Amino acid sequence: MAEIQESKESLQESLQQVITLLNKHRLVEGLVHKQDMPKHELVESLVHKQNLAELHKKLDALHPADVAYILEALPLEQRLDVWDMVKAERDGEILLEVSDAVRQTLIADMDSDELLAAAEQLDTDELADLAPDLPKDVLQDLLDSLDIQNRERLQSALAYPEDAVGALMDFDIVTIREDITLEVALRYLRRIGSLPDHTDKLFVVDRHDILRGVLPLKRLVVSDLDLGVAEIMAADAVVFHPEDKADEAAKAFERYDLVTAPVVDENNKLVGRITVDAVMDFIRDEAESDMLSMAGLREEEDLFSSVWKSVQNRWSWLAINLITALVASRVIGLFEGSIEKIVALAALMPIVAGIGGNSGNQTITMIVRGLALGQISTHNMKSLLMKELGVSLMNGLIWGSVLGLIAYWLYDNFALGVVMMSAMTLNLLLSAVMGVLIPLLMNRSGRDPAVGSSVLITAMTDSGGFFIFLGLATIFLL
Amino acid sequence: MAEIQESKESLQESLQQVITLLNKHRLVEGLVHKQDMPKHELVESLVHKQNLAELHKKLDALHPADVAYILEALPLEQRLDVWDMVKAERDGEILLEVSDAVRQTLIADMDSDELLAAAEQLDTDELADLAPDLPKDVLQDLLDSLDIQNRERLQSALAYPEDAVGALMDFDIVTIREDITLEVALRYLRRIGSLPDHTDKLFVVDRHDILRGVLPLKRLVVSDLDLGVAEIMAADAVVFHPEDKADEAAKAFERYDLVTAPVVDENNKLVGRITVDAVMDFIRDEAESDMLSMAGLREEEDLFSSVWKSVQNRWSWLAINLITALVASRVIGLFEGSIEKIVALAALMPIVAGIGGNSGNQTITMIVRGLALGQISTHNMKSLLMKELGVSLMNGLIWGSVLGLIAYWLYDNFALGVVMMSAMTLNLLLSAVMGVLIPLLMNRSGRDPAVGSSVLITAMTDSGGFFIFLGLATIFLL
Repeated sequence: MAEIQESKESLQESLQQVITLLNKHRLVEGLVHKQDMPKHELVESLVHKQNLAELHKKLDALHPADVAYILEALPLEQRLDVWDMVKAERDGEILLEVSDAVRQTLIADMDSDELLAAAEQLDTDELADLAPDLPKDVLQDLLDSLDIQNRERLQSALAYPEDAVGALMDFDIVTIREDITLEVALRYLRRIGSLPDHTDKLFVVDRHDILRGVLPLKRLVVSDLDLGVAEIMAADAVVFHPEDKADEAAKAFERYDLVTAPVVDENNKLVGRITVDAVMDFIRDEAESDMLSMAGLREEEDLFSSVWKSVQNRWSWLAINLITALVASRVIGLFEGSIEKIVALAALMPIVAGIGGNSGNQTITMIVRGLALGQISTHNMKSLLMKELGVSLMNGLIWGSVLGLIAYWLYDNFALGVVMMSAMTLNLLLSAVMGVLIPLLMNRSGRDPAVGSSVLITAMTDSGGFFIFLGLATIFLL
Repeated sequence: MAEIQESKESLQESLQQVITLLNKHRLVEGLVHKQDMPKHELVESLVHKQNLAELHKKLDALHPADVAYILEALPLEQRLDVWDMVKAERDGEILLEVSDAVRQTLIADMDSDELLAAAEQLDTDELADLAPDLPKDVLQDLLDSLDIQNRERLQSALAYPEDAVGALMDFDIVTIREDITLEVALRYLRRIGSLPDHTDKLFVVDRHDILRGVLPLKRLVVSDLDLGVAEIMAADAVVFHPEDKADEAAKAFERYDLVTAPVVDENNKLVGRITVDAVMDFIRDEAESDMLSMAGLREEEDLFSSVWKSVQNRWSWLAINLITALVASRVIGLFEGSIEKIVALAALMPIVAGIGGNSGNQTITMIVRGLALGQISTHNMKSLLMKELGVSLMNGLIWGSVLGLIAYWLYDNFALGVVMMSAMTLNLLLSAVMGVLIPLLMNRSGRDPAVGSSVLITAMTDSGGFFIFLGLATIFLL
């Protein structure tokens, strides 16, 4: 269903209306509760009935994606109220649209029968998206209820990792043979009666399902009907394999402006297709999870997760941060004697550490982005490092001098100013080296350079900054 | 052109081959330069000719998007070497594919005639993407060379801000009337001969170009040819207006799985269309610029920008950071007397500030994401704040106790441990309040909450953390 009734402008308004109706509904229920009015009287009450009817009407008129949006924006209790009001036959579609964290809260509220009923409304590729969140027994019942072809498809889709093309693909493929005319092809299509969403091309296969080419609909509708499929098909289509990396496929979709693309196995046999909407969802998810993971969060937390769940989600990152902060604290501890003598050192040292961390994070962001775009390899590592060292040297000399002057002016101690400038320059150089090396080493060891780079660099520039500044001060000022 | 010859696997290989050939080429030129061999002899040399021929062949075989990728991955000097070797008639397409920063380096290398020639290969909507980077006189020459319709289109496209639908739209629209049969429609299409890229639907308009509906190709090819267009068209298509926000349009494309959508003016007159590839590029650009701006970088810097350009790019952010670090340093300065008496305070204070900053950044990331998804409004602000305060309280009590014990153990001072725990809890609560309020206030005042939130929160938790910890210590330990 590509068309919708609701216009997009009203989405925020819809949310506001639902909330208003919900609040009215809860107000009435609250009153009943307080006054010990029997529940059945409430249900009879006219106001209450009107409210509920209006809410149901409102929700029924919304596109599943819009209901999903509203569920995401509601705190848990209200979210479940709304979820109970959604028509059961739309459960499946809506579960597909919500984020993983919200989906878990909704599934936890459903019993096995409801879950099975929701799952049965979905296609195999949609089921594959939902399956990892289902309880084991429900998943087993579901597998048992499928026919052999769909069971095999579901099992194979589940077998691919989340970041493989196999996990993104669907099975809504329409195939034709290359030895027929367009006239015959069009007659065949009219017999089918409707084509899957996003169909922009037909897949041309031989009798063994080996892919021979693709026939874009926009060529089909402008070509002479007497021509053969083989004559107007494109034989050099971009194809993918189920085990290809999903992010490579996403880049190819962007690069070559694809809408759908065939997925073939090692023998070039057609096994499915990828569509641009799956790719777009993937890109959005990746961008979000990158942003979250750089702050040490995982996708499992939604805006209204419980306090306890949020604490767990943010736990590991804070713990790592605590350890690195303790290390930095012990580095300072080494120089307590110096600080006792020149207490100004205590006030100035966080500046050196902070600027280093900031500059290191800028370098790392450039490198992580270059790695993500595939622009960095061994051939240009050296010139990258030289550039970042140059930037750090300039920043160190300029800003270091400014801060050196400020330190001189504040504490009337020229040598302190010189130490400040030298320490800043050295720490910025350290931050450049680490900012280039950390993501490259993480990448080479097969890890995601976005995750944790930022903690690592901050740990190094903190401890390094304290050590360099207090060390120089101890040598030259005492 | 939706199909390509190069398979995607070989993209990194292509880059490597180009670099190898380039290096050979430069080696020969270097030798010539050293030995003062006359240039014309070099040009005659067989090896050199072979190299160049191979490079040209390689580049000609690549898709414009792939040439763009290679240009992005090369340092400036080599990039311009490759750029000179690209066939002039492909310049326009390639300029469209490269990032803004790299485009500027390429344009700076071209003279007016080359630029005009490149621009003349492009459609009006593509020109609109390129135009802001062109020198003023070239742009004027270009406008003069266009016919009236295209000049008006280009001027109106340039008039929309970069984040409006008008800036994303193109003019490749195919329209039909609603009172004809599908048979007639198909005959009309065959007369046109070819449809624009991404055409998944025809736009149905009346004689005044007022949009009446859309006719998806996939309905056209399966329907009875005797039916009228009006009978099978969808009258309730998602439409956009040129002044709509591009990110709202992007969300609608994701939500409703669109491939193309009509753009109409206030009278419902069809003025253009948006395609999913423009939307996907927009999403990718947004995600990247969010990531960059959170680290205080702008898009103008590419991986191989000059040191001086990079310094300028990172300047403003570092300067802000410097000022906030100075403020924090002055807060410490207030308590130099206390630090002189208990030097342990100097070693412990960065821990309190650091954990607060980390926790505040986690909160801000959740809120910025919720704002970007439109999930946050006045109705749920209070419950968000309560949740974040809860998380901070728990983290403060748990981690604060751990650190309090460590401080007690390190310095054998029980009161110091209690001060440590209290300061951590208070600073975490401060970070929760600020982490919720800062992005909400920035959003309400119409600014992008992603830009600068992170500096602001770190500034507050640094200065706040130092003040709370040193203040409590001064009151209770001295």
